[in-house]
Amino acid sequence: MSSSREIRLAARPQGEPKPSDFELAEVELPDPGPGELLVSNTFMSVDPYMRGRMNDMRSYVQPFEIGQPLDGGAVGEVIASEDERFAPGTHVLHQLGWRERAIVPADGARPIDPELAPASAYLGVLGMPGLTAYVGLLDIAGLRDGDIVFVSGAAGAVGSLVGQIAKVRGSRVIGSAGSAEKVAFIRDELGFDAAFDYHDGEVRALLAEAAPDGVDVYFDNVGGDHLEAALALMRQSGRIALCGAVSIYNATDPPPGPRTLPAAIGKRLTLRGFIVSDHFDRFPDFVRDVGGWLREGRIRYRETVVEGIENAPEAFIGLLRGENTGKMVVKLA
Amino acid sequence: MSSSREIRLAARPQGEPKPSDFELAEVELPDPGPGELLVSNTFMSVDPYMRGRMNDMRSYVQPFEIGQPLDGGAVGEVIASEDERFAPGTHVLHQLGWRERAIVPADGARPIDPELAPASAYLGVLGMPGLTAYVGLLDIAGLRDGDIVFVSGAAGAVGSLVGQIAKVRGSRVIGSAGSAEKVAFIRDELGFDAAFDYHDGEVRALLAEAAPDGVDVYFDNVGGDHLEAALALMRQSGRIALCGAVSIYNATDPPPGPRTLPAAIGKRLTLRGFIVSDHFDRFPDFVRDVGGWLREGRIRYRETVVEGIENAPEAFIGLLRGENTGKMVVKLA
Repeated sequence: MSSSREIRLAARPQGEPKPSDFELAEVELPDPGPGELLVSNTFMSVDPYMRGRMNDMRSYVQPFEIGQPLDGGAVGEVIASEDERFAPGTHVLHQLGWRERAIVPADGARPIDPELAPASAYLGVLGMPGLTAYVGLLDIAGLRDGDIVFVSGAAGAVGSLVGQIAKVRGSRVIGSAGSAEKVAFIRDELGFDAAFDYHDGEVRALLAEAAPDGVDVYFDNVGGDHLEAALALMRQSGRIALCGAVSIYNATDPPPGPRTLPAAIGKRLTLRGFIVSDHFDRFPDFVRDVGGWLREGRIRYRETVVEGIENAPEAFIGLLRGENTGKMVVKLA
Repeated sequence: MSSSREIRLAARPQGEPKPSDFELAEVELPDPGPGELLVSNTFMSVDPYMRGRMNDMRSYVQPFEIGQPLDGGAVGEVIASEDERFAPGTHVLHQLGWRERAIVPADGARPIDPELAPASAYLGVLGMPGLTAYVGLLDIAGLRDGDIVFVSGAAGAVGSLVGQIAKVRGSRVIGSAGSAEKVAFIRDELGFDAAFDYHDGEVRALLAEAAPDGVDVYFDNVGGDHLEAALALMRQSGRIALCGAVSIYNATDPPPGPRTLPAAIGKRLTLRGFIVSDHFDRFPDFVRDVGGWLREGRIRYRETVVEGIENAPEAFIGLLRGENTGKMVVKLA
C-alpha cells in the first residue's frame, strides 16, 4: 500500500477552466501486480490538447470523466517493480500524470536517461512536444531549403522548437508570441530572425511587416487571427501544418474561420492537420537529430516550472492563458 | 480585313455583375500575319473563374482591363491560316473567346476532332472543366478505393464530371445542387447515390442525412456553408480539393470562413487548393480515360446553350446565379 494525491475532473469547464473544475484527492494505491510498476512521479506535463479532453466530445482521444483522475505525460522513478524489464530506481516516461504516485503498466512505460538530459526535458524538447515540432515541420509542412517559416505560439514548448529546427535547416524564421518578454526570448536567445507580440496590433499587419516577402510554411499552434493572417501572406505552393488552435480551445461557440481561406485556391496552398501519436515511428530519427542538436548547443529550451500537485490546475489554466515560456511542467518531487 | 463583334469590360463589377458592366463592340480585324490564324468561333465558354479576373486584383491570372475585350476558352474553324500546321477548315480550341472572330497565334491553338465529340464538348467535359474534375479528384484529393465522395456544384460542368468519375471508380457519391431539377438530373441521369438541393435547409443537416457515414473526399466548388458542413462531416484522414468558391465570388467583403476548420487537426484532414493550368501534363491521361468513358456511355454530359455574342454577358451572369445545368456555353455561329 502506498498513498498518493491526484487531481480529478470535478466539472466540465465552460469556457476558461476555473479552479473549481478540479479537485485534489488522496488515494491509497495497491501494490503493483504482475507487469506493473509503482512509480513516484518527479514531473508531470500540462498540455493545451488536454483542454479538448475536458469536453464531453468525441475526438481523437477519449474525453476525461468527471470524478476520475486526469492523465497525461509524466516522468518518475520506479519504486517497486513486478516487471523484469524495470529495476527499482529506473527513471521512466509514462502517461499517468496528474498524480504523485501511480501504478503504471510496464508496457506503457519507457526508460529515460536522466544523464543525457534532465528528466523534465522528456516531457518537452525530447518528448511529445518535441516530436510534434519535428514531424509537423519536416513531414507535414514538408520544409524545403530556402523556405520562409512562420510559427505562432513561438515561445511555447512546440513553437520554440519549430523555429529552432527551421533555423538549423537554414530557413528565415518569424515567430509570434504573447508578450514583449517572450518576443525577446525567441529573438535574442533562440535566434529567430523576426518576432512580434500579437497584442501590438492586427496580426495581419504585424506579420506583413515581419515577413515582407511572405511565408512558405506556417506552423499553426493557435488558429483564429493568426491563421487568417498567414493565409493572406502565404506564397505560392505554401504549406500550413495545422497543429493546434489554442486561441479557441476555451470558446463555448466556435468562432468564424479565416476569411482568407479562398486564397488557398489561387495560391495552391496545402493545409494539413495532424496528431503526433500517428507519427511515433519517427521517434528514433527525432531523438537522433534533436538530441544531437541539443548536445551541440544548436538548440536551447526553457521551462516554466510550477511546484506541487495542488498547483497543477493553476498551471494548466495559466498555460491556456499563455503564462508559460517554453514547456510548462509541474514538479511533484 | 474581316469584321467581328466582341464583348469588352465596361466597368469592374461591384458584387453581382450587371449588363452595364459589359459592352458589345464592332471591330475590323486585320489579315492574319505570319504564325497567325483567322478563326471564326463557333462556341465560347463562360466560367466562374472569370469573375475573379474582373476585379483589379493580383491573382493567378492577369485581371481583365476596362475597355478591352474579355478572353477565355473558345472553339472555332480556321478561315485563313499563315501557319502551315493549320489548314483552313481545321477546328481549333484557343483562348480568344468573347468574340465572333479572332486573330489567334497558332501556338495558342490546338486542333480538335469534331467527329469524336461535338466542338462545344472541348469547352466542357473534354476541356478545361473536365481536366479540372479529373486532376482535382484523382491527384489533388487522391481518390482511394472505397472513398465516400461529396461534390458541390454537382450539376455544373466540373461537379457533374467529378461525381461520374468517382462512380466509375466505385465510390459512393453525394452531390449538392441549387434546384430540384438539378438534383433529379444528377441522381436520375448521372447516377449519383444521393443528392440534395441546398435551398432545402441547413447544408450541414442536409449533408448529414445524405452522408450518414461521413465523407472521405470533398470536392469544393462553392466554399461557404458547404465547406463548413463538409469539414464537420469529414472522416479521419479525409481530403478536400479546394477548386472554387463560387458562393463568394460576388462578395464585396470576404465572408467569415468555416467555423469547423479546427476539426482538420483531430481528423488529420488535408485541404489543398489547385489551379488546373498547373496540371496540363495530365491532359493525355485525361483524354484517354474520360474520352474512353464517354465512348462507352459510362459518362454523360449536358450543356446549357445561350445563342449570340450579344447574350454572352447574360450567360455569364446566369452562370454565377447557377442558371446552368452542365456546361454553360455561348453559341456564336
